[in-house]
Amino acid sequence: MTSTLDSGLLPARTEPHPDVDSAAARRAYELDRKHVFHSWSAQDLLDPMVISAAEGSYVWDGEGTRYLDFSSQLVNTNIGHQHPAVVAAIAAQAAKLCTIAPSYANEARSEAARLIAERTPGELNKIFFTNGGADANEHAVRMARLHTGRKKVLSAYRSYHGGTHLAVNITGDPRRWASDTASTGTVHFFPPYLYRTAFHSTTEAEESQRALEHLEQLIVFEGAATIAALILETIPGSAGIYVPPAGYLQGVRELCTKYGIMFIADEVMAGFGRTGKWFAVEHFDVVPDLLTFAKGVNSGYVPLGGVAISPEIAATFGTKPYPGGLTYSGHPLATAAAVATINTMEREGVVDHAAFLGNDIIGPALADFAIRHKSVGEVRGKGVFWAIELVKDRETREPLAPYGASSPEMNQLIAACKSRGLIPFANFNRIHVVPPCNISVEELKAGLAILDEVLDIADGFAA
Amino acid sequence: MTSTLDSGLLPARTEPHPDVDSAAARRAYELDRKHVFHSWSAQDLLDPMVISAAEGSYVWDGEGTRYLDFSSQLVNTNIGHQHPAVVAAIAAQAAKLCTIAPSYANEARSEAARLIAERTPGELNKIFFTNGGADANEHAVRMARLHTGRKKVLSAYRSYHGGTHLAVNITGDPRRWASDTASTGTVHFFPPYLYRTAFHSTTEAEESQRALEHLEQLIVFEGAATIAALILETIPGSAGIYVPPAGYLQGVRELCTKYGIMFIADEVMAGFGRTGKWFAVEHFDVVPDLLTFAKGVNSGYVPLGGVAISPEIAATFGTKPYPGGLTYSGHPLATAAAVATINTMEREGVVDHAAFLGNDIIGPALADFAIRHKSVGEVRGKGVFWAIELVKDRETREPLAPYGASSPEMNQLIAACKSRGLIPFANFNRIHVVPPCNISVEELKAGLAILDEVLDIADGFAA
Repeated sequence: MTSTLDSGLLPARTEPHPDVDSAAARRAYELDRKHVFHSWSAQDLLDPMVISAAEGSYVWDGEGTRYLDFSSQLVNTNIGHQHPAVVAAIAAQAAKLCTIAPSYANEARSEAARLIAERTPGELNKIFFTNGGADANEHAVRMARLHTGRKKVLSAYRSYHGGTHLAVNITGDPRRWASDTASTGTVHFFPPYLYRTAFHSTTEAEESQRALEHLEQLIVFEGAATIAALILETIPGSAGIYVPPAGYLQGVRELCTKYGIMFIADEVMAGFGRTGKWFAVEHFDVVPDLLTFAKGVNSGYVPLGGVAISPEIAATFGTKPYPGGLTYSGHPLATAAAVATINTMEREGVVDHAAFLGNDIIGPALADFAIRHKSVGEVRGKGVFWAIELVKDRETREPLAPYGASSPEMNQLIAACKSRGLIPFANFNRIHVVPPCNISVEELKAGLAILDEVLDIADGFAA
Repeated sequence: MTSTLDSGLLPARTEPHPDVDSAAARRAYELDRKHVFHSWSAQDLLDPMVISAAEGSYVWDGEGTRYLDFSSQLVNTNIGHQHPAVVAAIAAQAAKLCTIAPSYANEARSEAARLIAERTPGELNKIFFTNGGADANEHAVRMARLHTGRKKVLSAYRSYHGGTHLAVNITGDPRRWASDTASTGTVHFFPPYLYRTAFHSTTEAEESQRALEHLEQLIVFEGAATIAALILETIPGSAGIYVPPAGYLQGVRELCTKYGIMFIADEVMAGFGRTGKWFAVEHFDVVPDLLTFAKGVNSGYVPLGGVAISPEIAATFGTKPYPGGLTYSGHPLATAAAVATINTMEREGVVDHAAFLGNDIIGPALADFAIRHKSVGEVRGKGVFWAIELVKDRETREPLAPYGASSPEMNQLIAACKSRGLIPFANFNRIHVVPPCNISVEELKAGLAILDEVLDIADGFAA
């Protein structure tokens, strides 16, 4: 397998791109340092790379140097950068009708809702559009609370649900801590994660069963009648890409049904082809009560998110108003981009391609890395949604960066990727393999070859 | 004055628009009813109007009937619908680079930050971009909390700050109630509102002074050391357009400074020309610590909001990371639309035009309505940001709809506007006069003439 990985498959990194203007890029950098306040960052310690152009699986910096984008930015450009069909649809809708208020009906909004509803599992046929994933999760929780008349939300550790106050409080990773006022009614549980099991399990089956026992105990001790919703990323994303073991999600679904708890599947990162299915829940044959999405719905070309809603929950707001909304709900430009994205993915077979890449290229390559590189503790994923977990010691499983932080070693690996022309997605002690779902086999193999080289460096940090 | 108001100034309502396709509109309606879950609505009771085209101050329904948009949708299309300069900029940016992650620098993002920072008052020179007004306010509160180390937020009754959990809880109108878990640390105060004074005042000066006394008492009794922020729409918008009396905002600024409380000016609706200044705070010569914006920043053509941040607060996150962010922060397409919008408004003198319309057309016309129509209790506003408050009885001031609700009478007036070709912005017992900031004098007078006729009907409901 690995003999076919070859970074020589990539085009020259300095091939010029017509959209790159290095003087404009330098000015963008200067203005950025003066005026732009960046997400999740210490503002004075930043030295942001200017991105001046992008195309398919590549981006170009302000000097015109090309990089292979193995991050899909924040795992959102599922159809790659600047897909011409979506760009054309945005221009066409912009020329026709950019914005109308949410109370009206509109062709783009209606068609996007239809295309999404036809792809969501079960009867999740009503679509509430938001601006992104955070507000999608906020509204899903509100719907569940008002539908059940209950308040608490169960959420997994090692999860991320968005940056607004409620969304970051139901998050189960360190991004929550600074805003955690212990007042949003969130109770966290331990999800299955055999490699660092919280349940002293030795097999996937045991981990699944024990995680479900733990969850049921938590429900019983918190009081089922106090719990409105359980929110879970179908396959947790930036927190580490944890594919749930067989039976776990079905078990969660059964517990939710048994106790009258609304099951919210957060598919903001896992949805729209990322795992080789339209939605990751399809792998596990479960139907949640609410499903949230964003990112891949239109590859983030225009900000868009939303909630797909069960008939029962929708009926709660049939004759009684839903007490929530936003100016840009069902934004015509954003939904027109979704229509073009979904139709393009369908036409070009992007979802099946993502499944193929996972089964035939990434999965085998990463399995081989796990054998050959002693710094690799575990690899896991589906489709184009994979994590490589790096350790200092395979025996003790000591991570290459502590939970919730980076480390000099990890920073060195990230720099090594970039210097070789690859933009990685890295978090704590992990490097994720999350290129666009329509990356070519050649580009993918070239990127994996770069990672292979970088793992040689990582091996130097491992016992 | 009123003799010049003339609804005959409008073009024929049935003049065809090339973008209207009535078969497509009917399908949009059907799909909407099947699949679209609408903001703030009882889903089964809706009969949404299809909007198929828009231009300047007009929209067209699915049958090709033209309406004058006196709502600017949700008071966001400050430069009207489909301004060709902004549409062209969106198409150009879409062709170049739709999306990049927030950690990078980019020409459109940097330039938008510069243009906004140069227009915000004082030294609010760092811009954190969000997707809309709700998340802008959420992040402003977080910044204030982490900067001060305090938790509570003071907010006015009769206010709206957004639809997400924290934003709707700091809201001071009934949209909060269904989600109010009394757990977000919000304390509400009474703002000045002489027409229905909470302070038994008889003059604007007295109202201003007593409202400030009330606010200071609240601060003292809540404990200044527990209060992170005071959030206030500079001129409250959808809650009723209350122009603060002379001295009030300066007094608020002084109290915030005295007690170490961060003053957040919410300019989501009042900003970007709506009041005849770039920002409404300029009317009152105050500089807040944080200023939030959305809507008018790019007329809502692409979802965008943000927070302008003082140097002191920015410095808090200089070497310590700001614990918040979002995938689409500083979205290139959204910020490119902002660049084009701001440059166009500057070039075309839209802000001065809005001031002129308020001073010379709307203000005098509404003052005249208040004399001639016994249903008019009060009129108030600035620029193209006005409210007409309707009453059943001028003596008792009984509103034409109760607080927090509509009424058959108000619904009849809204229908009368629409049947005459005018889309009004109505809430409770008020009709707001909030057309685009660049509406022509003729269009404005025509719309006011329609309102004049509709107020004749309203007079029939008044004692």
